[in-house]
Amino acid sequence: MLEKTGRLVLERFESHALRDNRQGDPWVRTIPVYLPPSYDNTRTRYAVIYWLHGFGQTALWGVNGSEWVPSLPRCMDRVIAGGAPETILVMDDGFTRFGGAQYLNSPATGRYEDYVIDEIIPYIDRQYRTMPDRRHRGVDGKSSGGYGALALAMRHPHSFGGVASHSGDIYFEACYRPLFWEFLNAVNRADGVERFLDHFLTLPKKDDRAYIAALSMCYSPNPDRPPYYFDLPVDVETGEILPDVWARWAALDPVFMVGPHADALRSLRTIYLDCGNRDQYFGHFGARLFSRKLGEIGVRHEYLEYDDDHLYVNYRYVESLRRLAETLA
Amino acid sequence: MLEKTGRLVLERFESHALRDNRQGDPWVRTIPVYLPPSYDNTRTRYAVIYWLHGFGQTALWGVNGSEWVPSLPRCMDRVIAGGAPETILVMDDGFTRFGGAQYLNSPATGRYEDYVIDEIIPYIDRQYRTMPDRRHRGVDGKSSGGYGALALAMRHPHSFGGVASHSGDIYFEACYRPLFWEFLNAVNRADGVERFLDHFLTLPKKDDRAYIAALSMCYSPNPDRPPYYFDLPVDVETGEILPDVWARWAALDPVFMVGPHADALRSLRTIYLDCGNRDQYFGHFGARLFSRKLGEIGVRHEYLEYDDDHLYVNYRYVESLRRLAETLA
Amino acid sequence: MLEKTGRLVLERFESHALRDNRQGDPWVRTIPVYLPPSYDNTRTRYAVIYWLHGFGQTALWGVNGSEWVPSLPRCMDRVIAGGAPETILVMDDGFTRFGGAQYLNSPATGRYEDYVIDEIIPYIDRQYRTMPDRRHRGVDGKSSGGYGALALAMRHPHSFGGVASHSGDIYFEACYRPLFWEFLNAVNRADGVERFLDHFLTLPKKDDRAYIAALSMCYSPNPDRPPYYFDLPVDVETGEILPDVWARWAALDPVFMVGPHADALRSLRTIYLDCGNRDQYFGHFGARLFSRKLGEIGVRHEYLEYDDDHLYVNYRYVESLRRLAETLA
Amino acid sequence: MLEKTGRLVLERFESHALRDNRQGDPWVRTIPVYLPPSYDNTRTRYAVIYWLHGFGQTALWGVNGSEWVPSLPRCMDRVIAGGAPETILVMDDGFTRFGGAQYLNSPATGRYEDYVIDEIIPYIDRQYRTMPDRRHRGVDGKSSGGYGALALAMRHPHSFGGVASHSGDIYFEACYRPLFWEFLNAVNRADGVERFLDHFLTLPKKDDRAYIAALSMCYSPNPDRPPYYFDLPVDVETGEILPDVWARWAALDPVFMVGPHADALRSLRTIYLDCGNRDQYFGHFGARLFSRKLGEIGVRHEYLEYDDDHLYVNYRYVESLRRLAETLA
Repeated sequence: MLEKTGRLVLERFESHALRDNRQGDPWVRTIPVYLPPSYDNTRTRYAVIYWLHGFGQTALWGVNGSEWVPSLPRCMDRVIAGGAPETILVMDDGFTRFGGAQYLNSPATGRYEDYVIDEIIPYIDRQYRTMPDRRHRGVDGKSSGGYGALALAMRHPHSFGGVASHSGDIYFEACYRPLFWEFLNAVNRADGVERFLDHFLTLPKKDDRAYIAALSMCYSPNPDRPPYYFDLPVDVETGEILPDVWARWAALDPVFMVGPHADALRSLRTIYLDCGNRDQYFGHFGARLFSRKLGEIGVRHEYLEYDDDHLYVNYRYVESLRRLAETLA
Repeated sequence: MLEKTGRLVLERFESHALRDNRQGDPWVRTIPVYLPPSYDNTRTRYAVIYWLHGFGQTALWGVNGSEWVPSLPRCMDRVIAGGAPETILVMDDGFTRFGGAQYLNSPATGRYEDYVIDEIIPYIDRQYRTMPDRRHRGVDGKSSGGYGALALAMRHPHSFGGVASHSGDIYFEACYRPLFWEFLNAVNRADGVERFLDHFLTLPKKDDRAYIAALSMCYSPNPDRPPYYFDLPVDVETGEILPDVWARWAALDPVFMVGPHADALRSLRTIYLDCGNRDQYFGHFGARLFSRKLGEIGVRHEYLEYDDDHLYVNYRYVESLRRLAETLA
Repeated sequence: MLEKTGRLVLERFESHALRDNRQGDPWVRTIPVYLPPSYDNTRTRYAVIYWLHGFGQTALWGVNGSEWVPSLPRCMDRVIAGGAPETILVMDDGFTRFGGAQYLNSPATGRYEDYVIDEIIPYIDRQYRTMPDRRHRGVDGKSSGGYGALALAMRHPHSFGGVASHSGDIYFEACYRPLFWEFLNAVNRADGVERFLDHFLTLPKKDDRAYIAALSMCYSPNPDRPPYYFDLPVDVETGEILPDVWARWAALDPVFMVGPHADALRSLRTIYLDCGNRDQYFGHFGARLFSRKLGEIGVRHEYLEYDDDHLYVNYRYVESLRRLAETLA
Repeated sequence: MLEKTGRLVLERFESHALRDNRQGDPWVRTIPVYLPPSYDNTRTRYAVIYWLHGFGQTALWGVNGSEWVPSLPRCMDRVIAGGAPETILVMDDGFTRFGGAQYLNSPATGRYEDYVIDEIIPYIDRQYRTMPDRRHRGVDGKSSGGYGALALAMRHPHSFGGVASHSGDIYFEACYRPLFWEFLNAVNRADGVERFLDHFLTLPKKDDRAYIAALSMCYSPNPDRPPYYFDLPVDVETGEILPDVWARWAALDPVFMVGPHADALRSLRTIYLDCGNRDQYFGHFGARLFSRKLGEIGVRHEYLEYDDDHLYVNYRYVESLRRLAETLA
């Protein structure tokens, strides 16, 4: 017997929040929406999971897949076939021309946080038969999207009742700092960060080489520094860590957000994290530390570590989707 | 003004050739078909390009994409927007559970060559308004798919009038042999090739670690050797190259197919190859050698080498698609 | 005409400072002493350069060499053949069973600083025709030895009149922190740092895998924590940086020693640093930062950066040896 | 109680065979000779082991060492302290400006085979109290030196009664061919092999980047092709393996020398090989194949495989030195 499969709708979403963003990135985005198998045959309302993609990707990346790398719709099909409540899955798009916005508002990249919270969520609640309440709304993601999920859940407790993060960017000491040095080498070879980024934009094949600059646009934007509007947390020439700028990053590190957002965290019905124990970005250390910090303030949660690395871990997504589907229903 | 975009149809294709294949791989496949922008508004007939995907992928991989890695439909849109004749693009599916079948018939994997030539092509010609003639039919692909394109074009001159290969598997000395040794190390650690493959099938995340075994299933199958039906071209313990088996591989190497298939090659209107000069599989050497062999027998063709490696070179696909669209129209 | 060559004496040196060190490392060491070509034919007194070897090496490493990797005696021969004043070169031995002691006193490793300053120097001044005065005494080294040279010169201005560092450990943020994470992975796989070190001592082939532990024995020893007597600057499980312990490391970072030792630095006649711009330990950032800090307090010095990495840069040693020979004479 | 240690003599050896070699390499070489502890207090004659160093090294490399990487004299001391008969160890020098000569005669590099067999051996037998007979003479080495040991023992059965190879170059398919491709990439970037080698000679820090060219000078020299006098076994542009040239290499591959030299092999009292099972040059496959070939013709020998890679395996040398010392005495 064949598995029942959901239906995919590609929403063409016009954002006001992203209009006139300084990067010149599009304010119209394609938002894939997964409607569960029975959606078209019922009048039921459904819980919704918002999925946040990783750095360098677009929302459409979530519907990409192959036999070896299951797409998100395919993961949801499996979760539902396994008996979990039918749930809508919305894939937000947070792409920028340098790779992503970490789902935060920033004068350098645009108001990606408002765009998710104030625009996409209400739109989905209007457009589809959702249960329009935080208790039935979750946020989930991988890598930068795992970061985004945690950050949004902590900063917007009225929007979400559950959160999950796969291999998320947690504890910036571990996941970002080790990358500063080769980035600075590249910037020095390019004769400065502005020239480096100018050149990046001309590449026929772009990759994550501008990662640290892109993150700086999110964590330490500077509206007074055209043309890219950010402060690096490190001196370009000497690599000296600049404590003021780094403090701005740290304030947005999930590990250090636990204290200020303890109430929000306590109010979440589901907090699920996982990470591979060979994560190239060392996200397993951050996940362990985040888990410890939650434990210290008595917040119930689940952290699973498995034997794998950071890449193509789509087979893990069923773990978070099932848990969220079950508790948000 | 917005670019006109083609329309994508996902064909659920039932193959007779793949029925009862020994790998137990599905005989029903999803074949994405790209119909060009004007298709629905005309009664015109169109040329068709068949695209063959790479190892470890499925046909659906071709419609995967992001801002940084354009999908095939997106590439076709661009080519057509640039003025090339509107053309249908059909994405064949050649996935097997170990990664792929190189688009050849094999008792180990199944009749993937017949499936393309005798089943998909006639089906497409029945189902869509094609120009059902070799002069208006091309075959194209990347990596293993580039190999497949060259092999099929040489072996089936009555089916295709043009061929292209991006970073194709050419000159097995360069692209495959250097990989034997780590494969043998892995097989030795697993205590033999059968156990190695048994274990592979249980992995939650599969990758190309069984590549050399999968290729052996294509190039040196052995119907008398269950359960996986192939001869390795190399002694598992000592790494000794087995000349008889290797000769079977070499006979299917595009470089050594040039002589036997000279007439077929001469009959092709378009032969386009490209490869990055830092290709991790050293495909640029094979492409140069193939190009030299074509030159020696006076076959007109084009080979372009560019500064890049083997991965995510989708931005190059417009080069072959444009050339094929122009000459097949 | 053949180059005149110096003569090598291997001193068997018995140290009181190293007696009863907690690592059980030998207190008798082989100290190679290079006597310049004319030493045996004159009654002249000579300046002395003390060379400090890198991590994992012994003093004898300095006399190792080949055509492609010139030994220190060979470098001194060249410098003298090039016209620099004849100078004695003494190769201190700072090996420990985990790789090295950074030439510091530590309850975990032993009193390696006293051993150089209070024992070897006076011994050499007694044993050889030296000019026993700081103005005629320099300290030089590579990698950990470059660190040692800078640290000893700053902390013992009465002992040295010149200092040089090749690819030295400077700015621990850059040269050490990125290595924490794989170290912790290894420690976690070994089920704790004590077991990890126990196992290390049984390896037939030892390497720098215990580097971070070995450095902790130097920078953050803890006499109350047997059997290895150190505090890691990072939580073993979560990777959390422990600020108190890290502060102890930072206090011994050459970059942060500039301020407290400004007078010592001003009193040095020669300060020479160099580093490859592709240094795997990112020592070029530290060297640039150290250079900037010296500039800020008006200390004359020379920093040269060249196109190379961290390994086998012996050909650079002539640069420091020549400068020191010239100014110490 | 302290271990008794041998005494090291550095012979300045003038070779006639190397005079006027085409590389302009020196014909005077430093040959370290290890005399066992009792040598100076007896009138006994001793067996002799000739040690051949690896590529890029000189004979002096053998006396290099540290606590973690024991030198050859140190290994001999240990072997003798362990009860093996006292034995002389002679370290031949086979360095060339591109890295080495594989201990063969070649119009491109010089007569390195004659130099060992016809010059050094007789010289040592004249100069020291040796037992000047093949039964008391062995040859041993690491990597290229392991190759040299096997090649010389097979080609000069009248000279040696025992042979050993650590991580030797065996089965060129495995140890050399995988390296062709990056070498060709480098040559192509340099605009041809001659320019590549010209530039190599100007490098301040030389390494094994010219390895394949250097090997070609040994295995496929061409006296008619100045200025470097060799044929590459591969087409520079296309990477096509050139069968005629490759056949010349294969004829010098230990694996294919077994048949032609079966009698020589049968006459050897000791044949010992070992290799790490993670050898980066895949020497473990060659060693296994060589071992199998010996087995097929009934030649007694020993092959040990251990868990390590190709580098710094000095701790293994005691294995061959002990066996040779015991059987050559």
